[in-house]
Amino acid sequence: MYNVILKEGGVCVCVQSLLVLNSLPVCSPLPGVSSATPTEEMNGAGNLMDFLDEPFPDVGTYEDFHTIDWLREKSRDTDRHRKITSKSKESFWELIKSLLDAWSGWVVMLLIGLLSGTLAGVIDLAVDWMTDLKEGVCLSAFWYSHEQCCWTSNETTFDDRDKCPQWQKWAELMTGHAEGAGAYVLNYFLYVLWALLFSFLAVSLVRVFAPYACGSGIPEIKTILSGFIIRGYLGKWTLLIKTVTLVLAVSSGLSLGKEGPLVHVACCCGNLFCSLFSKYSKNEGKRREVLSAAAAAGVSVAFGAPIGGVLFSLEEVSYYFPLKTLWRSFFAALVAAFTLRSINPFGNSRLVLFYVEYHTPWYMAELVPFILLGVFGGLWGTLFIRANIAWCRRRKTTQLGKYPVLEVIAVTGITAVLAFPNPYTRRSTSELISELFNDCGALESSQLCDYINNPNMSRPVDDIPDRPAGPGVYNALWQLALALVFKIVITIFTFGMKIPSGLFIPSMMAYHHHDWIIFKNWCRPGADCVTPGLYAMVGAAACLGGVTRMTVSLVVIMFELTGGLEYIVPLMAAAVTSKWVADAFGKEGIYESHIQLNGYPYLDVRDEFTHRTLATDVMRPRRNDPPLAVLTQDTTTVEDVEALIKDTDYNGFPVVVSRESERLIGFVQRRDLTLAIKTARQKQDGVVSSSVVYFTEDAPQLPASNPQPLKLRRILNLSPFTVTDHTPMETVVDIFRKLGLRQCLVTRSGRLLGIITKKDVLRHMAQMMNQDPESIMFN
Amino acid sequence: MYNVILKEGGVCVCVQSLLVLNSLPVCSPLPGVSSATPTEEMNGAGNLMDFLDEPFPDVGTYEDFHTIDWLREKSRDTDRHRKITSKSKESFWELIKSLLDAWSGWVVMLLIGLLSGTLAGVIDLAVDWMTDLKEGVCLSAFWYSHEQCCWTSNETTFDDRDKCPQWQKWAELMTGHAEGAGAYVLNYFLYVLWALLFSFLAVSLVRVFAPYACGSGIPEIKTILSGFIIRGYLGKWTLLIKTVTLVLAVSSGLSLGKEGPLVHVACCCGNLFCSLFSKYSKNEGKRREVLSAAAAAGVSVAFGAPIGGVLFSLEEVSYYFPLKTLWRSFFAALVAAFTLRSINPFGNSRLVLFYVEYHTPWYMAELVPFILLGVFGGLWGTLFIRANIAWCRRRKTTQLGKYPVLEVIAVTGITAVLAFPNPYTRRSTSELISELFNDCGALESSQLCDYINNPNMSRPVDDIPDRPAGPGVYNALWQLALALVFKIVITIFTFGMKIPSGLFIPSMMAYHHHDWIIFKNWCRPGADCVTPGLYAMVGAAACLGGVTRMTVSLVVIMFELTGGLEYIVPLMAAAVTSKWVADAFGKEGIYESHIQLNGYPYLDVRDEFTHRTLATDVMRPRRNDPPLAVLTQDTTTVEDVEALIKDTDYNGFPVVVSRESERLIGFVQRRDLTLAIKTARQKQDGVVSSSVVYFTEDAPQLPASNPQPLKLRRILNLSPFTVTDHTPMETVVDIFRKLGLRQCLVTRSGRLLGIITKKDVLRHMAQMMNQDPESIMFN
Repeated sequence: MYNVILKEGGVCVCVQSLLVLNSLPVCSPLPGVSSATPTEEMNGAGNLMDFLDEPFPDVGTYEDFHTIDWLREKSRDTDRHRKITSKSKESFWELIKSLLDAWSGWVVMLLIGLLSGTLAGVIDLAVDWMTDLKEGVCLSAFWYSHEQCCWTSNETTFDDRDKCPQWQKWAELMTGHAEGAGAYVLNYFLYVLWALLFSFLAVSLVRVFAPYACGSGIPEIKTILSGFIIRGYLGKWTLLIKTVTLVLAVSSGLSLGKEGPLVHVACCCGNLFCSLFSKYSKNEGKRREVLSAAAAAGVSVAFGAPIGGVLFSLEEVSYYFPLKTLWRSFFAALVAAFTLRSINPFGNSRLVLFYVEYHTPWYMAELVPFILLGVFGGLWGTLFIRANIAWCRRRKTTQLGKYPVLEVIAVTGITAVLAFPNPYTRRSTSELISELFNDCGALESSQLCDYINNPNMSRPVDDIPDRPAGPGVYNALWQLALALVFKIVITIFTFGMKIPSGLFIPSMMAYHHHDWIIFKNWCRPGADCVTPGLYAMVGAAACLGGVTRMTVSLVVIMFELTGGLEYIVPLMAAAVTSKWVADAFGKEGIYESHIQLNGYPYLDVRDEFTHRTLATDVMRPRRNDPPLAVLTQDTTTVEDVEALIKDTDYNGFPVVVSRESERLIGFVQRRDLTLAIKTARQKQDGVVSSSVVYFTEDAPQLPASNPQPLKLRRILNLSPFTVTDHTPMETVVDIFRKLGLRQCLVTRSGRLLGIITKKDVLRHMAQMMNQDPESIMFN
Repeated sequence: MYNVILKEGGVCVCVQSLLVLNSLPVCSPLPGVSSATPTEEMNGAGNLMDFLDEPFPDVGTYEDFHTIDWLREKSRDTDRHRKITSKSKESFWELIKSLLDAWSGWVVMLLIGLLSGTLAGVIDLAVDWMTDLKEGVCLSAFWYSHEQCCWTSNETTFDDRDKCPQWQKWAELMTGHAEGAGAYVLNYFLYVLWALLFSFLAVSLVRVFAPYACGSGIPEIKTILSGFIIRGYLGKWTLLIKTVTLVLAVSSGLSLGKEGPLVHVACCCGNLFCSLFSKYSKNEGKRREVLSAAAAAGVSVAFGAPIGGVLFSLEEVSYYFPLKTLWRSFFAALVAAFTLRSINPFGNSRLVLFYVEYHTPWYMAELVPFILLGVFGGLWGTLFIRANIAWCRRRKTTQLGKYPVLEVIAVTGITAVLAFPNPYTRRSTSELISELFNDCGALESSQLCDYINNPNMSRPVDDIPDRPAGPGVYNALWQLALALVFKIVITIFTFGMKIPSGLFIPSMMAYHHHDWIIFKNWCRPGADCVTPGLYAMVGAAACLGGVTRMTVSLVVIMFELTGGLEYIVPLMAAAVTSKWVADAFGKEGIYESHIQLNGYPYLDVRDEFTHRTLATDVMRPRRNDPPLAVLTQDTTTVEDVEALIKDTDYNGFPVVVSRESERLIGFVQRRDLTLAIKTARQKQDGVVSSSVVYFTEDAPQLPASNPQPLKLRRILNLSPFTVTDHTPMETVVDIFRKLGLRQCLVTRSGRLLGIITKKDVLRHMAQMMNQDPESIMFN
């Protein structure tokens, strides 16, 4: 064998070029031997990695706004794993290193859980403080929120825990008058001013430092997880700025929640910790497994719902979710929730955000209103999505989009001006939800629980239904109704602004209380038959379901949120109804709609492709296009290749035996080709423009006068994915989805006909759904 | 176009043969037109279905013990869906039909939920009654169990609810003496006798009527869900017999749980309802979606844990689990749990089996014992699996396997004889667990709660830790320890016997009480620092985790089982530790081990294939084998085809352009080929043994003397799956897993080299793991 190598000049060059391109001094086996003894060289995807190792820092990565090839990433990881395993047998130190590598996944999960839990705790505390800062300040310690301020005060009794001398509203502090029209106006003015200040700060920070920190982030994260590269979207700056601006945005009183952004923050944490381990930082596929788990941790801390978080990641966000990720996600979600609990921002040392105390059973007849709530939720979801998308499209296409700061300021101003007079909109949304979900206890000071006490009894009775509603209840009802309308309208305009915005809580906040009045009458006196808090919960689930189209994860989040294991059935009834109703008007949830609006190349797992087209209808070149740009295995020159690279912008080129036979032998990436030729020209003697490039094992038979040929077999992917031209597109779509391909070659009877890329598939799908195929952007 | 048809005799035959084979009078478009205008004929996978429609009842199905082709099934379903959608525009009735079709999935789920919930309720009631029947009988109504008997009696107070005059032990009833050695011996004797009777009945029923009703069923269901056909395994008879024998087996006191078999029962229900809708009955892929959901319903009723059931199905059982199935599974699981709750077999109107009342917080320091429990669980899991597999292998290979009835009788006898003297093994396992999980309340009559009451106090105090343990506690402890050893040993021999047997509860039952004594001392008096029930829970989770290797679903089941949302962290710690420890000794859980033992062709999603082999190393024909059996597109005769079918037992044959060029054009199924030739010989004139079979659009140019050729393009799959010979096996395994292929063709530069079937892949994997490749059976 070595004889052969020494004899044939071409093969010797091969050895030499290998030594240059790759530190591994292994000569590729000769044909015939190759198929029997698989070596490194033979491994189609693996050899890319060898070639792309250390020497050049940016190889093996993808360009910005490009799609990754999952199969290749997976192959590279297996290769890496294999190397470590074989090395681990060599020495004790390598064994330790291999064990560390095996455990690095769990370490990353632990770190993600700790950091995202901590950040969520800090955000919660900061939001609490700053929301209250709009109304007043704590005299004993200005960094206390209203609640903390009065808690630490010993002078108050339990009954009026909201009123304590240490906490002073601004008017009281500045003028000394706590009551009166002047004080009210001053408070009002300062409330609006603070809100404007916060939101101005937020939007400016986002614009100046991290443009990617705006929005909810979930549509982009879905796209990234499906295999798209957006550099910097999960970077350190984004993490920092998003955390700060999230606090500012929520505190400014805008109708947005911190849940979506928390997912983004957690994913940034995930990305940050990925960079500590080359296993994850150098493999886009593995990185996405970590990010899926991080998303679970994000939802986990947003609601204190670890299981719900995992299911959310599985159902809503993730694209590739192997079982391993399931376990790790659960671990990360638990650690995060546990860290948050240790920080204890809600002061009740519970894992859950809105713990409900009631365990009243519900009756079968109540399923009817629950389902009606579901219908309402579905309709509201449809309406919300349509209105929001219409508004965002207008923002994108008209002058409006050019003044994002002004827009944010204006919306904040309007929100603050309208929100202050109504006590239900003035306070933070999560406080409000907490009050709505809670049942009226005997000691509840809330206006909603203002039932008239029987004067004959010395202490308030526990069974509310027997008592007539006091004026407070009716007052509360119309205030709530107003709050409902206000929140519906303002949320439409808020979601999608250039400011961190989530939508969970705003949608959950929505709107349940109609039912109250109806059921007040229906309910027989004395029987505690209706739990208003339960209706609030179910209504919230229905609205959230209509907007996001979650089902299982939604129900699990809701019941983890409230601790009400008994209410799965009502929640499920509402969530499923809501989804059905909303789906009848359009399959896409809010996140998918935003993905579509932005033209991200996202291949939804849920879309069923049912059209009768074939691969031949989708592949390029089309009928009248110039022929496919291919390389031949041993007749193309360096010059030709460089011309091809210059003239086209394809990501790669098929290599065929000859232009006549069109028999496919492999596929070569544009990036690898450019790099290899550049390196060869620099380091390998005798490579000139007229040198022949060959991809075969042996150098072609050339006249002696020809310059030295250049062997590039190492960068050739010998196992490109092919389908026949008769393959139905539904199968092709399935293959692209399940294997995460970037491109696929089309053959007929062994001849290369064309190529289908992910973008072609997406465009075709858009076309089939009567959408504009040009709306799909990026590569 | 019609002109051409009329001119060329061959094409006319094509029209004719189409009319015979298929009721659709569409002639295939001519070449050239074909690639531009996709029609039915072009759809490689689709046309199989047209061909295989009504006329022959058994086409489109697979043979017993064969693997299905998921891609083909999916393709067929899309085709069906497409037909219905296009028809639905024709008339109102068709629209209704299409809506019904769209809803049939939910209807099936509803039916599965209702039936499996009902069956579970009936089984629970029957087991309760029959377990008690071994000890005595209710005088007021013989169909009452002990508990029901004494509940309905008004004469008893709450304190001795277990003792009421209506309930008489056998000795008391027969001899009039309730106490004394004679009565004890008589009770003992009758207890054993009943047990033997029950188990004899169970094993006889299984042997005579439904051999598939034996065992836990989960390994087989996993295999079926991965795409394997075992006819009758989920049939009506199996359902009936399994339900009856499950009651008998559990009542006989054998150390087995009803949880695994309940999954089997639920899957039988699923299969039963599938047959109502052609959408599911005629498509093996769709059927498996339903079965996945049914498995979720099964676990849901086994534990009253709907979310846990869904996760169990996702994590442990299912192979293909699209999001649609997630929602439907959840729905089925909920309906099932709800139905069970309505039947209320546990008499506490709770969804959960073992509701725990305690909400004592746990301390961080307790994580250490929890993790130790996890280690113990992992070790126990490993031990159990090894011992059980060794025993089952012995049963398979030696004389033992020939006397299953005798074996069951013997094990039952031993179990009953040993179980009776110990009160913890005498009663049913679920009763025992219920007691162990519960905290000692003040009114608890259990021996475990026999703490000495302070005589100075008039009523028992609630805070147990202050009181010294009474003799009952120590008594209970050694009885429990004995029970532990006994259960460990006997379960090893029981699981895998020819009788319905599950293993959840027996494993959960395992073994938590060591810790008690340790912690009794550790605990400072007065502080209620340790909750024994929690340790029982965590111990159970650890053992179950070690045996089955579940994690997330296990934790969720445990916390749904007990309603203890607070204890996720301890449970998770134990479950993950247990899995790690057990995985260190061997990757396979009990179900995978049994799959391997039985040689089922199961391609585990969790096994990572990390070897460096290539497709070329696995494909057949091997180096010295005869060449691959192929058909040529237009030179093979009917005779040749029949000879090929007779001489080989391959499931299908590749079709190539010619033997020289070896360029692949498609793949034809053996079954379709046999059927088509048979039909053509019967119905088409002029087809004789020397007729040429052709797969091209046009008939080949033949001398006039030749008999009429036979066109078979319709049964040709024009989009067979191919990989190149250089494709790494890890990629091939991935493709087989994700796309659910049955076979895959191997090419090099467009030439056909060989074929890889699922069995080849499995054999290769076994070989790489140093196992016997011949252990993989079936096709």
